[in-house]
Amino acid sequence: MTETRDPRHLINRKLEHVEATVFGGVERLTSTMLDDITLVHQAFPGFSLEDVETMSYFLGKKISSPIMVTGMTGGTPELGRLNGIIASVVEEMGLVMGVGSERIVIENPSSEESFRVVRRNAPTSPLVANIGVPQLYRGYGLSELKTIISVIEADALAVHLNVAQEVFQPEGETDYREETLAKLRDLSKEIGIPVILKETGCGLSIETVRRFSSYGFHNFDVSGQGGTSWVAVEKLRGERRGNWKSRSASVFSTWGIPTAATIMETRWSDPTSFIIGSGGLRNGLDIAKAIALGADVGGFALPVLEASLEGKNSVRSFLNDVLFQLQAAMLMSGSKDVKSLRKASIVIRGGLKEWMESRGISLSTYDKVRKGGY
Amino acid sequence: MTETRDPRHLINRKLEHVEATVFGGVERLTSTMLDDITLVHQAFPGFSLEDVETMSYFLGKKISSPIMVTGMTGGTPELGRLNGIIASVVEEMGLVMGVGSERIVIENPSSEESFRVVRRNAPTSPLVANIGVPQLYRGYGLSELKTIISVIEADALAVHLNVAQEVFQPEGETDYREETLAKLRDLSKEIGIPVILKETGCGLSIETVRRFSSYGFHNFDVSGQGGTSWVAVEKLRGERRGNWKSRSASVFSTWGIPTAATIMETRWSDPTSFIIGSGGLRNGLDIAKAIALGADVGGFALPVLEASLEGKNSVRSFLNDVLFQLQAAMLMSGSKDVKSLRKASIVIRGGLKEWMESRGISLSTYDKVRKGGY
Amino acid sequence: MTETRDPRHLINRKLEHVEATVFGGVERLTSTMLDDITLVHQAFPGFSLEDVETMSYFLGKKISSPIMVTGMTGGTPELGRLNGIIASVVEEMGLVMGVGSERIVIENPSSEESFRVVRRNAPTSPLVANIGVPQLYRGYGLSELKTIISVIEADALAVHLNVAQEVFQPEGETDYREETLAKLRDLSKEIGIPVILKETGCGLSIETVRRFSSYGFHNFDVSGQGGTSWVAVEKLRGERRGNWKSRSASVFSTWGIPTAATIMETRWSDPTSFIIGSGGLRNGLDIAKAIALGADVGGFALPVLEASLEGKNSVRSFLNDVLFQLQAAMLMSGSKDVKSLRKASIVIRGGLKEWMESRGISLSTYDKVRKGGY
Amino acid sequence: MTETRDPRHLINRKLEHVEATVFGGVERLTSTMLDDITLVHQAFPGFSLEDVETMSYFLGKKISSPIMVTGMTGGTPELGRLNGIIASVVEEMGLVMGVGSERIVIENPSSEESFRVVRRNAPTSPLVANIGVPQLYRGYGLSELKTIISVIEADALAVHLNVAQEVFQPEGETDYREETLAKLRDLSKEIGIPVILKETGCGLSIETVRRFSSYGFHNFDVSGQGGTSWVAVEKLRGERRGNWKSRSASVFSTWGIPTAATIMETRWSDPTSFIIGSGGLRNGLDIAKAIALGADVGGFALPVLEASLEGKNSVRSFLNDVLFQLQAAMLMSGSKDVKSLRKASIVIRGGLKEWMESRGISLSTYDKVRKGGY
Repeated sequence: MTETRDPRHLINRKLEHVEATVFGGVERLTSTMLDDITLVHQAFPGFSLEDVETMSYFLGKKISSPIMVTGMTGGTPELGRLNGIIASVVEEMGLVMGVGSERIVIENPSSEESFRVVRRNAPTSPLVANIGVPQLYRGYGLSELKTIISVIEADALAVHLNVAQEVFQPEGETDYREETLAKLRDLSKEIGIPVILKETGCGLSIETVRRFSSYGFHNFDVSGQGGTSWVAVEKLRGERRGNWKSRSASVFSTWGIPTAATIMETRWSDPTSFIIGSGGLRNGLDIAKAIALGADVGGFALPVLEASLEGKNSVRSFLNDVLFQLQAAMLMSGSKDVKSLRKASIVIRGGLKEWMESRGISLSTYDKVRKGGY
Repeated sequence: MTETRDPRHLINRKLEHVEATVFGGVERLTSTMLDDITLVHQAFPGFSLEDVETMSYFLGKKISSPIMVTGMTGGTPELGRLNGIIASVVEEMGLVMGVGSERIVIENPSSEESFRVVRRNAPTSPLVANIGVPQLYRGYGLSELKTIISVIEADALAVHLNVAQEVFQPEGETDYREETLAKLRDLSKEIGIPVILKETGCGLSIETVRRFSSYGFHNFDVSGQGGTSWVAVEKLRGERRGNWKSRSASVFSTWGIPTAATIMETRWSDPTSFIIGSGGLRNGLDIAKAIALGADVGGFALPVLEASLEGKNSVRSFLNDVLFQLQAAMLMSGSKDVKSLRKASIVIRGGLKEWMESRGISLSTYDKVRKGGY
Repeated sequence: MTETRDPRHLINRKLEHVEATVFGGVERLTSTMLDDITLVHQAFPGFSLEDVETMSYFLGKKISSPIMVTGMTGGTPELGRLNGIIASVVEEMGLVMGVGSERIVIENPSSEESFRVVRRNAPTSPLVANIGVPQLYRGYGLSELKTIISVIEADALAVHLNVAQEVFQPEGETDYREETLAKLRDLSKEIGIPVILKETGCGLSIETVRRFSSYGFHNFDVSGQGGTSWVAVEKLRGERRGNWKSRSASVFSTWGIPTAATIMETRWSDPTSFIIGSGGLRNGLDIAKAIALGADVGGFALPVLEASLEGKNSVRSFLNDVLFQLQAAMLMSGSKDVKSLRKASIVIRGGLKEWMESRGISLSTYDKVRKGGY
Repeated sequence: MTETRDPRHLINRKLEHVEATVFGGVERLTSTMLDDITLVHQAFPGFSLEDVETMSYFLGKKISSPIMVTGMTGGTPELGRLNGIIASVVEEMGLVMGVGSERIVIENPSSEESFRVVRRNAPTSPLVANIGVPQLYRGYGLSELKTIISVIEADALAVHLNVAQEVFQPEGETDYREETLAKLRDLSKEIGIPVILKETGCGLSIETVRRFSSYGFHNFDVSGQGGTSWVAVEKLRGERRGNWKSRSASVFSTWGIPTAATIMETRWSDPTSFIIGSGGLRNGLDIAKAIALGADVGGFALPVLEASLEGKNSVRSFLNDVLFQLQAAMLMSGSKDVKSLRKASIVIRGGLKEWMESRGISLSTYDKVRKGGY
């Protein structure tokens, strides 16, 4: 079905998405539950701010800081320009970057340049390619994946899951059949780079992570609830077009697993997995909390995209602030390096505490798990 | 006493009720506590939206979806017209429908047509006849019940309990004496169809369900707090008429068991019973939550009644949305069929969690009960 | 010291109190925590409204309903008139009544008539005389108590404790020395009627009740926080007079034990005691909750005083509403009589649950205690 | 680095601080969590207000009341005038006083007089000298400490920790290296008076107190979150000067350990330590709560500084009110002396209860610890 449609609809959809997420009030409609976590202040860290070491690893590759600009955009010259701006600063600062869905590259090869710019501007950074699960189901094979990967010389491939969004799209593709996982497992042995399973705003659950683990997948971008709501984006798009499903989208406006909860559910289910903590993170303190909760790196897309509209200086300024905030949080929680941050003392309260209790996760046992004592 | 009054007062009362519930702000004055439940998102359901199977059973009869339009209206030509509209769509979609109290049929046979239309327009759907407990106490016997049942060729008879409303009515009948249950038990052996005990907005408790079970009743329409408040309806009616009891009605505006809690209390007390989850449900996500909590089907009356005032298309559109929302909730909670939905992962928090703890219901034990492991 | 002052100051103080409590916004500044209790709805009580039996006992004397108008006023002809109005209705309805502090009777015998009217208008009702602990400390003996009792031919003597109010009065008497309890114990053997220890808006604690029990006192009027705040009354009075202590009164505006908590603390500490549940009760549902929580009767003063300003019909109407609300609550909680109400199913949540946990009172053990299974 | 800067910047900074804290809305931005504690009312204390004994000890020295004016100011003639006003009243009332950071005395000896006035006006009161940890790291030794101590003939030396403020200062010194503790331990053996480790608004944690204890430090001024936010002060200052770090300060506006929690964390970690409970305390009831929670004395700075701007009478009036409130709280909690107040019955709820649970501190075990049964 997709193959026969004019690929321009994909470009339009992406532009509409950027517009909706940057300007449309689809942000932070729900809680990330990161406010239910407190990093415990340590009045005497035992070191200085300049001693803080943020160096970390992204799937085995050294990075300056555990900060990732997660995949969101690409496809048109304008979006390519934004990708290029972001990539330059990511390279400068030694961070990680993902790109938006590359399905358009297959359907409209002229869109390649909007992705190629990323590797050109970030020659040494870890970069993450991106394709959706429904495309795999609908026929994409090794050849398409190799194209997608090679366009940015990717270090990893994110396969995104966005069932909540697809459900409410007029043209939604809700194919999340079991056999796709087997296919992905087989393909993953041939593409030569790690696969990351990536949600898009509703989070990964214990049950889902266990399913993935049973297929040999152990790298996750949790993307929990509390950031951009793609259900709300589809509601807005649907209202403009008179799509009857948009009436139902508002019923599901709070659907999903809050970011803090999905990090915990994922770490709990697969204690040695590699976890990108994302979904509504907006500053370096959020990143520090995500890591202390169990993530390996913290990621966000929207605030960087917003900054990129104003140019490179704005991206640099934003990311430098984030880095400083991360360092400040590490200093004041007594965490000299990222490994220590994973073991920092935290307080968990309110809805997050209730969530975990209801899911049968004892906070004291979890504390051991997040600190590596599984 | 009732027998000697002009039966027109019943018709007027029904019209007044429709007016008050549709226009009078007597809705959702209190919480259903359904907001305290979260269905856990499953990013990779393992199937597609089109694979979702909503087929279910209503007291052993196959239905397309576990959705019931619960009993609310009938008695006058205008209300009969609404009944007819609703029945047509229920038949089209393969759902279940109940009618309003049929006491008026006995007292004023000319009102029959307003009920007969239901079976005429819904020849194959499961239909539920309806009579109040006080009528049984005040003399109704096999003959009256058979009339009530035959008018709609009912598949089941709902005996409604509305003590909270009766208490604040000027003409209220608060006869809920033990012997009525024995009488009902005996009658139920002769009417040939199952009996459903049905609350009307205050919910069933552990104690009440146990009492009913001891008399051999195992089918329940819980009708919890959080939808139409009949106490508030009586308050409005009483104020117009200068009824002194209406001053007290406001003191009881929050009286009752919230819908989420009464579903749990009922399933806990009678693990193998048939439960209609109702009271303030307004969309397909609410129905999915009710079923995941322990109900067999979900029901509502008011939103369908409101839609019926605008005609058949409006009812069809509303119920189609509800069905789509139910399917979406099933897909995203990883529930391929209704049986799986009953076992879906849920999170219980806030006031509902506290309610259950205070009632001595351990959430982990309840989790086994609702999944059928009693 | 008191003896040498012009007794008119007492009259003025009482008038000021009436003014402040009726008009001054010193009501319900804090929570009674009665909202944290829910009486569980019983859809099929097993009896009718007319079967509800509210007959009860007040210190062994039969009363029509467990409703007490607690002591608040007396001392001037105008306040005597209000006392007389209230007493007439109490007699009509078979309730219990207490009078305000009778210290003024000793200091100004002309004030007697304002109390005598109570017994004259309520010849058969249980009546409760009233004196403050500080008066006992400051010299009152058997003679004064006998005068106070005989003026209303009292059935019991309430000794009131109001340390929170006294602290912030310019002329406050904060004498709550241990020896007073011994003196009261000795006097109580000679006065021929039971003694009730009565708080005045701050509630009785586990520790205080245990102390009282150890002296042989087992009748309590708990008067918890959530009704009239006498600290707030003193703040207002102090501000008018430039009393420096009034600056501090606002710091203590939330001081005290909420009514629901003090009933539980008292019943817990002395399981077989006689308990008047009071403090911010305003209707018959509040009284039902107080009794279900562990009180023997429920009491209030302010709403009756307010009604008495409008005359006897207003008092009668108010108390009839309260009685109806109590009956409704008994019916719908499945409590045919007051003894059953004490065993009614309740749900305890929120701050009250936390209060009890923090005080080491297990809710499941308490449930046995309140039901008589100590 | 500090040594080469013009010391006038220190004076300016102090004036700016006074301005910001008194006028700038940097107060009580977050909760002290003291509202989550209730002292249980005792209706019959067993003694009178005049029997309440507030006499206490400050590091072994007798004081009239456990009230401390904690260190905040000094450095200029104007600030010296305020210091002098405060000191006179502290002496009159037999309290304890600390001074602001004396680093300026070393860098600008002409500022000495603004501190000397304190001892002159408070010849017999316990006085606490004050220096920051970064100064120790940056070279201060025995000589400087002796100067600082002798200027006010101090009874104790407070070494303040303010890492959260330093992080966001343009000129911030975040040197909190382990070796400084060893240096301080060695110096403390030679200065002849006790050392107090003092936070400045973010509180001490279990981990930090254990670290200090392991170096032999057992006197703490916890200064928790909920009073003056120095992070907010630096945000305001930074905005005026265009300091880029001020953008990040707002992200950390709720960073820190609430006062009630830090008192508990400190007492839990070092049961026999000497604890000054401070951070957002504003009246005598707060002081009573701090002591009941585990502090030895209660302290505050800002409200006294504010009063001092209006003169000695204002300070006296404020502190007399505080003393009266403390006495009232002691009377009504049944605490005849400070030792009894430490054992007073308390109720702990809400966020504080959750904080403690999350930190693995059982409330029932803590209750024994705070009462001395460790």
